[in-house]
Amino acid sequence: MIFSNDHKYNGRGIEMKNAVGREIPEYIEGYGKTKPFMGAFENYGERQRASVRLRSVKPGEKKLLDTIDQVLDKVEMKDGMTVSFHHHLRNGDYVINLVMAAIARRGIKDIHVASTGIFPIHEPLVEHMKNGVVTGISVNYISPGPVAKAISQGFLKRPAVMMSHGGRPRAIESGDLHIDVAFIASPEADAYGNINGVGGKASCGTLSYAVADAIYADKVVAVTDTLSPYPACPIDITQDFVDYVVVVDSIGDATGIVSGTTKVTSDPVGLKIAKIAAKVIDACGYIKDELSFQTGAGGTSLAVAAEVRKIMKEKGVIGSFGAGGITGYFVDMLTEGLFRNLFDVQCFDLKAVASYRDNPRHQAMSGSLYGNPHDKGAIVNNLDVMILGATEIDVGFNVNVVTGSDGVIMGASGGHNDTAAGSKLAMVVTNLIKGRLPVVKDKVTTVTTPGETIDVLVTERGIAVNPLRQDLIEKLKATDLNIMTIEELKTISESMTGQAEPIEFNDRVVAVVEYRDGTVIDIVRQPK
Amino acid sequence: MIFSNDHKYNGRGIEMKNAVGREIPEYIEGYGKTKPFMGAFENYGERQRASVRLRSVKPGEKKLLDTIDQVLDKVEMKDGMTVSFHHHLRNGDYVINLVMAAIARRGIKDIHVASTGIFPIHEPLVEHMKNGVVTGISVNYISPGPVAKAISQGFLKRPAVMMSHGGRPRAIESGDLHIDVAFIASPEADAYGNINGVGGKASCGTLSYAVADAIYADKVVAVTDTLSPYPACPIDITQDFVDYVVVVDSIGDATGIVSGTTKVTSDPVGLKIAKIAAKVIDACGYIKDELSFQTGAGGTSLAVAAEVRKIMKEKGVIGSFGAGGITGYFVDMLTEGLFRNLFDVQCFDLKAVASYRDNPRHQAMSGSLYGNPHDKGAIVNNLDVMILGATEIDVGFNVNVVTGSDGVIMGASGGHNDTAAGSKLAMVVTNLIKGRLPVVKDKVTTVTTPGETIDVLVTERGIAVNPLRQDLIEKLKATDLNIMTIEELKTISESMTGQAEPIEFNDRVVAVVEYRDGTVIDIVRQPK
Repeated sequence: MIFSNDHKYNGRGIEMKNAVGREIPEYIEGYGKTKPFMGAFENYGERQRASVRLRSVKPGEKKLLDTIDQVLDKVEMKDGMTVSFHHHLRNGDYVINLVMAAIARRGIKDIHVASTGIFPIHEPLVEHMKNGVVTGISVNYISPGPVAKAISQGFLKRPAVMMSHGGRPRAIESGDLHIDVAFIASPEADAYGNINGVGGKASCGTLSYAVADAIYADKVVAVTDTLSPYPACPIDITQDFVDYVVVVDSIGDATGIVSGTTKVTSDPVGLKIAKIAAKVIDACGYIKDELSFQTGAGGTSLAVAAEVRKIMKEKGVIGSFGAGGITGYFVDMLTEGLFRNLFDVQCFDLKAVASYRDNPRHQAMSGSLYGNPHDKGAIVNNLDVMILGATEIDVGFNVNVVTGSDGVIMGASGGHNDTAAGSKLAMVVTNLIKGRLPVVKDKVTTVTTPGETIDVLVTERGIAVNPLRQDLIEKLKATDLNIMTIEELKTISESMTGQAEPIEFNDRVVAVVEYRDGTVIDIVRQPK
Repeated sequence: MIFSNDHKYNGRGIEMKNAVGREIPEYIEGYGKTKPFMGAFENYGERQRASVRLRSVKPGEKKLLDTIDQVLDKVEMKDGMTVSFHHHLRNGDYVINLVMAAIARRGIKDIHVASTGIFPIHEPLVEHMKNGVVTGISVNYISPGPVAKAISQGFLKRPAVMMSHGGRPRAIESGDLHIDVAFIASPEADAYGNINGVGGKASCGTLSYAVADAIYADKVVAVTDTLSPYPACPIDITQDFVDYVVVVDSIGDATGIVSGTTKVTSDPVGLKIAKIAAKVIDACGYIKDELSFQTGAGGTSLAVAAEVRKIMKEKGVIGSFGAGGITGYFVDMLTEGLFRNLFDVQCFDLKAVASYRDNPRHQAMSGSLYGNPHDKGAIVNNLDVMILGATEIDVGFNVNVVTGSDGVIMGASGGHNDTAAGSKLAMVVTNLIKGRLPVVKDKVTTVTTPGETIDVLVTERGIAVNPLRQDLIEKLKATDLNIMTIEELKTISESMTGQAEPIEFNDRVVAVVEYRDGTVIDIVRQPK
């Protein structure tokens, strides 16, 4: 083996510096050989997808099973398997806990839980981690809470793998993430495996994150509490992808779907930031017919949507589409005619669920269609403007949404690095100070999204434009907006709070942060 | 090599007798090694799908091309490639001719045309066959006409491959049929490759037959005459499957979609048969709540639907679903509440197109979902009653819909053998005499659908039940319906017409008839 300049030995194994300057071990125990991040747009070209294995179903065969235990028999659940789940029921989901409890009761160990998201309700996973039932977790979304904390505390044998919403289907489709059994929480299903997310007792709307699992997993199980007469139309996932259907008492609590903020903020600083952000978008020339637009569901992001909406109405602009996780707020913009269409990867509230059910212009998109860099063009590639949050941002515009100020895991990319890469104007909006700590730093604790894909930072004290975007700097010069360098914002920020105490870490790698293309953009070590 | 009893040498290469008693050469020049048909339900179990190859698309890349010639450059079209098409525009389709003319102009030879269907409008293919541009054809549907005739005349270098609607996606998904470039006639598309079949100048409704092509072909090209602003919602095939979009003057003539009969027959014999057929269905206990039902679009088949509709109304029955190629007749049954849903693989008329566009209970199904035996359960598996036509049926209930009384190719399975295998009651309805020739024979000229999957034959002179279905024979005994053996029907039929002259064939194999599972159920030799 030849060591290039990018390799050095530092007592923690061979490390390589990746394209955002992070030292990535060449091999990580429990993860394997790493591919270091090479740059956001360096890893395209010819791809080969994994070959799907399945058991074909003869006319007359039945798929309906009575209990999760029967399912575990049928799928021959055993040590070392990867089981997958989706998070459309968010903090109302009961399915992960139900299935994992049944697996644990059998004494099965060493399970990899590949869930698109994990919420506080999934706290029982911590016990499964402690006793070796669960030794691996991969997620594209995780809320601050017991499981995130337990991962940081090192209770998981193997490092958790943090993906993005587009990166996970990429991993599944490429074979990087092989799923043995996909358990799909199904608000409504029929006995032959047609599933939809709009019927039933716990309607969650689109089932987009489960699509890759349904296509590629060796076995696919629909877990439902609402078994309807055949066919369970309008079908989101069709019977030809489903091996078994099992009925449980309840798959979840639909009110838990609305978790986290999904309303416009009332905080005056947030509102001020939103006003500035909308002015920047307008000054950059994006608020015009055919605008496509996405925000997160956070209060400040939605406040930006509110400001953009105002300007669209004033100008009589008809946008092309709104996208992402969809809130009632975007539904209103659709019905007002401000967008012709919505692309929905996840309904954030019950108004979005109803709109997806009733309005054909409110269209589902699979996770792959949403953000997979290795398909023939994801929806994020067609985004004009993306409004993003940040826990930290550094002077290279790299963003952290994975670890908090204490170094503890409190999130995953979700669609962050997907939309940043795809959109023409990727804008981070944030208070300059959060929890008495500066948001702009020399180096973020963990890189989730590379700076080359972030165009503008908007704070209540000023705006910084990525020097890569001289075109935007030119446009904004002509305005009265308060443009400064990101270093200046850092200085202001630190002058108000002082520098943050550096966080100390042990050597133990508790999580690997994959960029959407499957390369490693950063690792998370255990905080001391 | 050991010759079993199933092998014999007859001067035409080694042949094996398949499960319907046909001698199938072990190897066919231009087709390859054959897998003889083993029985309709013998070929299930574990399956592995082909691995998809694609070129991932970076943000900022364009897909829109100006001419088909530019497309041929981009996809590097060359000798020996397989190009695919769908037949949703039926006898109104211009796309096959446009693309093949452009290929021919380049002097490219030895192309395999894998179209889901071929119609008289595709007559220019004959010239391409004669001059070696096209040397292979595979189809699941072909109308009587110039191309069918030219295949029988031996103008094609390799044998044509006749598939079923479910067999073709099976072949694509398994890798048996590898498509280099899929050209998808797209009634409406946007510049980034979202396609729908309900917009545009030549709306054809669902694009179901093109789905497997879009997923598995190396390159996918949307050919449209209606380029709409992004996104072309409601999307049938999404941008993540499409490499290029090209705009042409016209993809076809929407009035050509309605080709063949799609109205209830007015012929008194046909109406009599339909009345009897409906009585049989009722006597067998199928006209009750949750009925699922499919007919072809032929006049007698639709007359059966009309009779069943009457009985459903009398009884107040609410059916589960109607399926197949959908006509306005089934749309009316949906809107009357006789079915809760429709599964539509192909819109047969413009009323069906409008219904598919506007009614969420009128749902598209891909060809694979419709009839693929090697997925996790096709819709045909859930059919109660299927009404089928026949050119010939023999005393083993084997049906021919491929060759006419002169031995010339005039059809392909379409959904015939898929639905026969899947449905609980597969019923052939036909006049006992057609064109002064008997329909019931000792042996059909070509087996399309194996007798083990046909349950009942209904003619104007009497009904024959497959002896495999003693349960139905018991039920029908109690009625005043005129039940006889199929041999008796043959005798009646022959007493009226005399025995048909045997057709004489050369040794040359002009077509291979694949059963839905990819095994060879029969071959078609060149008629003398």
